Amino acid sequence: MSQKPVHILNGYRVLDMTHVLAGPTATRLMAEMGAEVIKVEFPPLGDVGRGLPALSNGRSGYFVQQNRGKYSVCLGLKDPAGKAILTELIEKSDVFIENFAPGVIGRLGFSWEQVRAINPKIVMCSVSALGQQGELSALPGFDNIAQAYSGIMGMIGDPDGPPAFPMAGIGDVMTGVHAACAIGYALLHCARGGEGQFVDISLLDAYTHCHELNVQLYSLSGGEIEPTRAGSQHYAVCPVGLFKSPEGYLCIIALQPQWANVCRAIGRPELIDDPRYDTNEKRVAAGPEVVAIIEQWLAAQESDAACLEALERERVPCAPVLKISEVANHPHMRGRGTVRVVKDEKLGEVLMPGMPLRFSGFEHNQELVAASLGEHNEKILGEVLGYDAERIAALNAAGVLQANPDT
Amino acid sequence: MSQKPVHILNGYRVLDMTHVLAGPTATRLMAEMGAEVIKVEFPPLGDVGRGLPALSNGRSGYFVQQNRGKYSVCLGLKDPAGKAILTELIEKSDVFIENFAPGVIGRLGFSWEQVRAINPKIVMCSVSALGQQGELSALPGFDNIAQAYSGIMGMIGDPDGPPAFPMAGIGDVMTGVHAACAIGYALLHCARGGEGQFVDISLLDAYTHCHELNVQLYSLSGGEIEPTRAGSQHYAVCPVGLFKSPEGYLCIIALQPQWANVCRAIGRPELIDDPRYDTNEKRVAAGPEVVAIIEQWLAAQESDAACLEALERERVPCAPVLKISEVANHPHMRGRGTVRVVKDEKLGEVLMPGMPLRFSGFEHNQELVAASLGEHNEKILGEVLGYDAERIAALNAAGVLQANPDT
Repeated sequence: MSQKPVHILNGYRVLDMTHVLAGPTATRLMAEMGAEVIKVEFPPLGDVGRGLPALSNGRSGYFVQQNRGKYSVCLGLKDPAGKAILTELIEKSDVFIENFAPGVIGRLGFSWEQVRAINPKIVMCSVSALGQQGELSALPGFDNIAQAYSGIMGMIGDPDGPPAFPMAGIGDVMTGVHAACAIGYALLHCARGGEGQFVDISLLDAYTHCHELNVQLYSLSGGEIEPTRAGSQHYAVCPVGLFKSPEGYLCIIALQPQWANVCRAIGRPELIDDPRYDTNEKRVAAGPEVVAIIEQWLAAQESDAACLEALERERVPCAPVLKISEVANHPHMRGRGTVRVVKDEKLGEVLMPGMPLRFSGFEHNQELVAASLGEHNEKILGEVLGYDAERIAALNAAGVLQANPDT
Repeated sequence: MSQKPVHILNGYRVLDMTHVLAGPTATRLMAEMGAEVIKVEFPPLGDVGRGLPALSNGRSGYFVQQNRGKYSVCLGLKDPAGKAILTELIEKSDVFIENFAPGVIGRLGFSWEQVRAINPKIVMCSVSALGQQGELSALPGFDNIAQAYSGIMGMIGDPDGPPAFPMAGIGDVMTGVHAACAIGYALLHCARGGEGQFVDISLLDAYTHCHELNVQLYSLSGGEIEPTRAGSQHYAVCPVGLFKSPEGYLCIIALQPQWANVCRAIGRPELIDDPRYDTNEKRVAAGPEVVAIIEQWLAAQESDAACLEALERERVPCAPVLKISEVANHPHMRGRGTVRVVKDEKLGEVLMPGMPLRFSGFEHNQELVAASLGEHNEKILGEVLGYDAERIAALNAAGVLQANPDT
């Protein structure tokens, strides 16, 4: 285990009973900010994330990405001794976070009421798909389930067909950021003399939060406007969307002030004042024509780079739709550490997304390693709880503590 | 202006020079947590968001949603008197946040070096599309531009066509949450005796952060695996995706443990051990067949509700793809305040997304109102900076201060 980075959360202990993605994202951010994060996992396999791809030498890239910088304690909670250890860890922690299905943590004996009785100063955070209470809260929760219920899924894809299924854990990751955010403010409250408290974070709230326009537009139209998905082009602004280019697709965003720039960039200055296209309203009505004009020009260029250069020269907001390989190797991403090289004993050097929070006072992209299952059983029980070697050996023998160095 | 809510950030002053969405999301969260947020806008129109839909009685629902609970000061920065006022406000604030294009704030005379010289204890946050430095940083920045550069856009949509263009400001909103998160931890650092600092938050970092799998999968495969968008079905797990139902589409997520549940739910228990479909690998290979089997069953049901009931009875994770009207009126959303009713003098009652951070110690979904342009010029200059009426009148006369109550 590498040294804890010198960072904002030095001196804070986070007891982490989360798994897979949303919760682990929150605690990974806290680990990168210097918290002592104790990840509690359950025998025999620990966090399900340890089995997710890419796997190499028995090690999961998925797990490593979400769990760098955390200690691992593997604890059987069915045994009363396991629950006693968890209770002692709660006593000695500043934050307790879990992302079981709502109700599970209470049935384990660690609801907020029970936890605050153990440690009134603690900040407890529960992360769920659809919230801790309410008629949907008991449903099995995955990122995309909450995405569908939030209305966000319905806003992505072809209007005449099914929505698109995004191949990235956007909801889980941003929900983890919502959780880290709320915990940070709750800790600030404690640092100013306030009490501990319970924080309820859900994918549904986080996704619904992303409707900057749709809900109020529907509401203010008295229900007349039902915003819907619109394929690859914006339904109300033109030209805004995806355009076929020599090598793939380009994203072009031209609001009213940029229409003249687009016309100049594509060598059609006569279109600037063409009465067929001179307002956004007319361009939206003639959308397919406008798209065809732009794609005709794009098709005649030598390369995507040539298209982008011409558009950028006229200050038209545009971007190539990068592939993962292009993101991973892009000099801007690598230079800024938006994509970073993580060193792992078993995986070797792996590219992973960088720390998204950059502070001038602290090093960006800390070197941290992920733990094997139960790697820190002895360390945490010894150093944090003061258990002696004999007691730990007995817990090992009873199977309350387990470990698997091949993870 | 309603009273500031009793909440975590009482006593903190946030100087907010952000506009449109990402930055205003960060400061709106802070306003909901009780901060005194002073939004500085520029004549003659103020935040561009004031012109965005839905508009009613000269008032923008878009603006109201992102700016509830903030004071508005409308200040001409081209006049030295305007810069002097801003300097004094920086002296008296805990946080200074802006989301101009990189470099602009420095040219205005308020780079981090300049700001820290004015107030060494301040936390300054700059929010941008592609980061403060690096070869892409100067490009015009919109949510979708960063989405395209991050590789997230390329992971959404039909693999044989253009990516889908999401009709929701996901990137801006979650970047605002990243910013609020980082500011919260920076304030915690200050509360523990640390120094102020600069926080650099970008859409590109936030979006790239959402690749929980793609970057490391590409990297660990030695470049052999290039993750790509996959339409409406997951490319590596089946059945996971969108399925045509009697009234629309349903999202169904069945990992290996749920395959038997799916078979039972659709009345085809004989498929559980059918050697054509008994592993995920085989189901992915026979994807269209599996989708057809499920859609055949869905088509034979009376309603989406009947489909969901049958699937939920077998604990198959599933969800309807809700329309905006369904989200807005759903009893779970309304009951929990995931969608809330906001009262506005000019708009009346409007539905908007709820506060996504829920604290047990503080009221959820505070009643806050949005300000008209320059509504608090006198209040802030008088109460915060101690200007007398005469001095304020002179600034009004000189046009350094402006206001428009009809906004």
